Amino acid sequence: MRDLAAHPELLSINTATVRERWGLLEIIEGCARHGIRAIAPWRDQVAKSGIEAASKLIRKHGLKLSGYCRGGMFPAADEAGRARARDDNRRALDEALILGAECLILVVGGLPPGSKDLADARAQVEDGIASLLEQARPAGMKLAIEPLHPMYAADRACVNTLAQANDICERLGDGVGVAVDVYHVWWDPALEAEIARAGRSRRIYAFHVCDWLVPTTDLLLDRGMMGDGVIDIPRIRGWVEAAGFKGSVEVEIFSAANWWKRDPDEVLEVVKERYRTVC
Amino acid sequence: MRDLAAHPELLSINTATVRERWGLLEIIEGCARHGIRAIAPWRDQVAKSGIEAASKLIRKHGLKLSGYCRGGMFPAADEAGRARARDDNRRALDEALILGAECLILVVGGLPPGSKDLADARAQVEDGIASLLEQARPAGMKLAIEPLHPMYAADRACVNTLAQANDICERLGDGVGVAVDVYHVWWDPALEAEIARAGRSRRIYAFHVCDWLVPTTDLLLDRGMMGDGVIDIPRIRGWVEAAGFKGSVEVEIFSAANWWKRDPDEVLEVVKERYRTVC
Repeated sequence: MRDLAAHPELLSINTATVRERWGLLEIIEGCARHGIRAIAPWRDQVAKSGIEAASKLIRKHGLKLSGYCRGGMFPAADEAGRARARDDNRRALDEALILGAECLILVVGGLPPGSKDLADARAQVEDGIASLLEQARPAGMKLAIEPLHPMYAADRACVNTLAQANDICERLGDGVGVAVDVYHVWWDPALEAEIARAGRSRRIYAFHVCDWLVPTTDLLLDRGMMGDGVIDIPRIRGWVEAAGFKGSVEVEIFSAANWWKRDPDEVLEVVKERYRTVC
Repeated sequence: MRDLAAHPELLSINTATVRERWGLLEIIEGCARHGIRAIAPWRDQVAKSGIEAASKLIRKHGLKLSGYCRGGMFPAADEAGRARARDDNRRALDEALILGAECLILVVGGLPPGSKDLADARAQVEDGIASLLEQARPAGMKLAIEPLHPMYAADRACVNTLAQANDICERLGDGVGVAVDVYHVWWDPALEAEIARAGRSRRIYAFHVCDWLVPTTDLLLDRGMMGDGVIDIPRIRGWVEAAGFKGSVEVEIFSAANWWKRDPDEVLEVVKERYRTVC
């Protein structure tokens, strides 16, 4: 396993972690100031600051982009909705290319409004990824399917296990892989085996960390700082690295009641310390 | 598939559904008054009303017990804790036998305090079930492992998929099976296959229904009335019945902000209507 304390350059900050009090340009400057060498920005933040300004500042500081958040949200109630999703995903792909991201993260979407047909939503997801892959593959942009925790199956992502994501990848071929976020997959009895399976096809494109708090008080916005919850992060990182992953350890914390309220400089200090000591 | 409208006797009320405003004896009387022929009571309610009184009233009304809630909570930080869990499970078993329940539901427990070792917790669960099975099997009481939604992996149950429960059952042999609760398993891509697998060994001992609300505002106490959420209940019931299940459709709704606040007579009327029309 890699010694993270000896490799600060492997730390990446998903910009959601400090988004409440800093705009994207402040986040870029802040990360540079803290010696953080990689980020993963979100589309709405990029749109707000302007992609040219963001791109210029990222390059000025030589930051790596461990991923771009995010494409996906494929299922829709009708063909017009699916066409809009396809168009939007192409724009996300273009932005990821402009920014030089290592991969485009896909949060695939859940049930269309009014639908209870999970099998159909999953089929729509696969069609959507296949369509996007036709543009992404020749452009050289990797697509990373992020399986989300099953508690998001209805409204955010109906790909809920690494097995499911691996199955899709195997059917669709080169250029599509997975993002392993410990928060979403830590509970999965098949996790070790499915990480190894993804590794055999060199499909692990991203690795995200935060922690599962006990109790968790909100389904979306109560994620914990690494070390404050129950996830055995080093064990999972060990599996991911044994499977050949050499990329960034990306910290992504949605925490409305705690970390989002704090001074982002303090948050980044804590992130750096926990990265060294508990990840 | 069975026509539920023609079979009101297949409806069972898990007593948690109306527990906030009625004690157990009131629930038994209420169900009898509403023509409901089966219930699944909880241990704390039984203890409060007294097992003799509860048992007598259940028999007076000829109610069936589709399950007894609950055994489990096996993992502990030390051997003394595990011994206490074993003793407590034996008492639960004795109570289930006195009450004449069809099965003892097992909510297996999560991580012991301070532990991040999910594999160890899962091993402790299997040991605990194996030990309980030594008493349950000769007594003729079936043990039903209820896989809980992965969002409960840390604090309530580290058996989170039907595949996992089926694996345990196959290793432990006769007398142990599964409780399929749509709330916990609806998202699982392997659900249809794992229901069929459980059916092949005649291991489906219970079938529970409620609904997944969008949005869900609380991890534990925001479950929906059937029809108010996104779960395709008839599809899952179809799979369960195709797998040979002939037992009750048990309604179990934890709803602190809505159904628990209402008049239980109204709740039971709505349950009966939804049972006929959307399950």
